[in-house]
Amino acid sequence: MKAFLDPRQSRHDPRMFLKAGVPRPNPEAPGRVDRLREGALAAGCTLVAPRDNGSGPIAAIHPAEYLDFLATAHDRWQSVDGASDEVIPNVHPSRHAGSRPDGIVGQAGWHMADTACPIAADTWTSAYWSAQTALGAADAALQDGVAYALCRPPGHHAFADMAGGFCFLNNAAIAAQSLTTQGRRVAIIDIDVHHGNGTQGIFYQRGDVLTVSVHADPAAFYPFFWGHAHERGAGPGEGANLNLPLPFGTGDDGFLAAVETACGRIALFGADSLVVSLGLDAHEGDPFRALAVTTPGFSRIAARLADLRLPSVLVQEGGYLQPALGDNLAHFLTGWSTAP
Amino acid sequence: MKAFLDPRQSRHDPRMFLKAGVPRPNPEAPGRVDRLREGALAAGCTLVAPRDNGSGPIAAIHPAEYLDFLATAHDRWQSVDGASDEVIPNVHPSRHAGSRPDGIVGQAGWHMADTACPIAADTWTSAYWSAQTALGAADAALQDGVAYALCRPPGHHAFADMAGGFCFLNNAAIAAQSLTTQGRRVAIIDIDVHHGNGTQGIFYQRGDVLTVSVHADPAAFYPFFWGHAHERGAGPGEGANLNLPLPFGTGDDGFLAAVETACGRIALFGADSLVVSLGLDAHEGDPFRALAVTTPGFSRIAARLADLRLPSVLVQEGGYLQPALGDNLAHFLTGWSTAP
Repeated sequence: MKAFLDPRQSRHDPRMFLKAGVPRPNPEAPGRVDRLREGALAAGCTLVAPRDNGSGPIAAIHPAEYLDFLATAHDRWQSVDGASDEVIPNVHPSRHAGSRPDGIVGQAGWHMADTACPIAADTWTSAYWSAQTALGAADAALQDGVAYALCRPPGHHAFADMAGGFCFLNNAAIAAQSLTTQGRRVAIIDIDVHHGNGTQGIFYQRGDVLTVSVHADPAAFYPFFWGHAHERGAGPGEGANLNLPLPFGTGDDGFLAAVETACGRIALFGADSLVVSLGLDAHEGDPFRALAVTTPGFSRIAARLADLRLPSVLVQEGGYLQPALGDNLAHFLTGWSTAP
Repeated sequence: MKAFLDPRQSRHDPRMFLKAGVPRPNPEAPGRVDRLREGALAAGCTLVAPRDNGSGPIAAIHPAEYLDFLATAHDRWQSVDGASDEVIPNVHPSRHAGSRPDGIVGQAGWHMADTACPIAADTWTSAYWSAQTALGAADAALQDGVAYALCRPPGHHAFADMAGGFCFLNNAAIAAQSLTTQGRRVAIIDIDVHHGNGTQGIFYQRGDVLTVSVHADPAAFYPFFWGHAHERGAGPGEGANLNLPLPFGTGDDGFLAAVETACGRIALFGADSLVVSLGLDAHEGDPFRALAVTTPGFSRIAARLADLRLPSVLVQEGGYLQPALGDNLAHFLTGWSTAP
C-alpha cells in the first residue's frame, strides 16, 4: 500500500493547549509523524511524497476567506500589542452569531473553535501539505484500491470556515470532495475516538456524501456540542449523517458492533468509494483514555471495512504519543491488506 | 439620588483574563466598587441596600437552565481532573451551533462566550446581588424619577443564556424587564465604550423595548461580532435596535453627537422610561483607551439624557481602575441632578 507524507507536515509544532482552565503541553506533537511512519513501514507501505495539486481542491471545501485567514493569521497577530507567539482565540461569537469583524483578534475567535488549534508561523505550510497528502492518497486509491494518507495536522474537527481541536483543513472532506468531483459516490466513516464534527458540519446539508462517525459519547467529551445520535443531517442531507456514540470504556466488541452498523448504512447508501477518518485514539492506551479498543482490535476493524470492497482512502486523524501508537497503525494497515 | 449597592457584590474576584494569547490580571476587580461608591457619595447620593426580590425577575430574562449553570458551575468544575480553581471555557460551539452537552467542560463553553468571565466560588452570589441592586434602583426610579445602581459585576455583555466580558446576569435587561412588566415602555441606552451585545441579543427580536448603544467601533474591538451599524433588530424587533459605533479616539463632541441621535430615536419610540447602561470606560484615561471622553464630558452626556425627562435607572457597567474613575461617576451623577 502507498503511504503519502510530505516532510513539511512536521513543521507545525503547537504549544498552547488550555484544558480545564490550565495550560498544558499540546498533544498534537510533530513526533506523531515519526511513530506513524514507523507503523506504516512495518505494515509494508511504500512512502510517497504527494504532488502539489494547488489550492483548488482545498478551496472546494474551505472558503477562500478562511484560507486567507489561515495563511496570514500568524503575521497579523504579531501586530497586536503584547501578543503571544501563537494565535490563540480569547473571544468567540458562540451560538449568538454576529458579524465577522476586520481585526485579527476577532477573526481568531470567528475562525477558531477552541484553544486547541494554535496557529504558529509554520501551521499553514503543514496544514497545506497535510491536505495535499490526502489528495495524493485519494488519487492512488482509485488506481490501487486503497492508499494511506499520513495526514498531520489532522483534519476532522475543521469545519468549512473554522479550525478546532488540532485541525485546520479537513483532509478527509477534501479527499472526499476530490472523489465526488470525479463522479464517485462517497461515504466517509470516522473511527477516531472524537466525533468528526467538522466533517459532519461540512456535509450536513448535502445528500451526495454519507457521513458516519463512531466515537465516545460527546455528552462529556470533546467535541461536546456535536456527535449526538439525534444529529441526522438537514435539508437535502437529512438522513445522510449517522452518529454512533459509544459509552466510555467500550472495547473491541462494542466498537465492532458499531462499525457493523456503519457498514450496513454505507452499503444501503450505494457508496462506490470510501474515506476512512482513521483515528487511533480509541485505543485503550491512548492519553485520552475514553474507549478501550486493543491493538489487535484495529486489525479487526480494518478487515471489516476492507470487506466493503470499495476503493478506500485511509486518512490519518488522531492518536497520540504512547508506546502502542505505531503498532496500532501497523495492525490497522496489515488488517486491511490481509483481509480475505 | 439613591445609590443601590449590596456588600456581597464585592466577593467576586476574577483572576484569569486571556488577552491576545497571554493570561493577564482581570481588570474587573472588586476595588472598582470602592471607587464608584466614593464617586456616588461625592455626588450626594444616599447609599441604599437593595431588598431581595428573589429569582423571579432575573428568570424573566435568563432561562432557569442558565441560572442553574451559574449557580452550580464552580462546584461541578472541581470534579474535573486537574481543573483550575475558576471555571474557564476552552471549547466553544461557535457559530456552528450543536447540542448542549451534559458535562461541565462542554457547558462552560456553551454558556460562556469568552475567557473574560471566569466563575469562582462567589461569582453567583455577587452576580445575584448585582441584579437585585438593579431591581432596587428600577423601583426607586419610578418613585424618585432617577436612581443609580452600582452594579458589579456588570451585565451588558451577558446574553439570556451566556456570560461574557466580565458579565453574568444582564442587570440593565433585568431592570428594563421589571419596568416592562409594570406596563412601562422602556428604552435602553448603553454608553459603555464596549457595545452592549448581550442587551442587544436579549431584545433583538422584541419590538416593545428599544435598545440603543454608543460605543467604539467593534471592527477591531470587543465584542467584535456585534455592535455594527447594520444590526437593526429582527422579526418583531426589526428597527428597534440602533448601533452608533464611533471611531477610535472620538472625544466629547463626537460622543455627544451620537447621544443626540440616540435621544431623537428614544423620543420617536415614545419611551416613558429609560435604562442607562452607564459605562465610564469611554473616558480618555480608561485602561481600554478606545475613546477620549473627558471627565466634564460625562456631565454633558448626563445632562442631555436627563433632558429626556423620563424616569431613569442608571445601571453601572464598565469603567476600570484609574485615577479618574470615581470622578467620572461623580460628574455624571451631578450632571444629571443639576440638569436644568
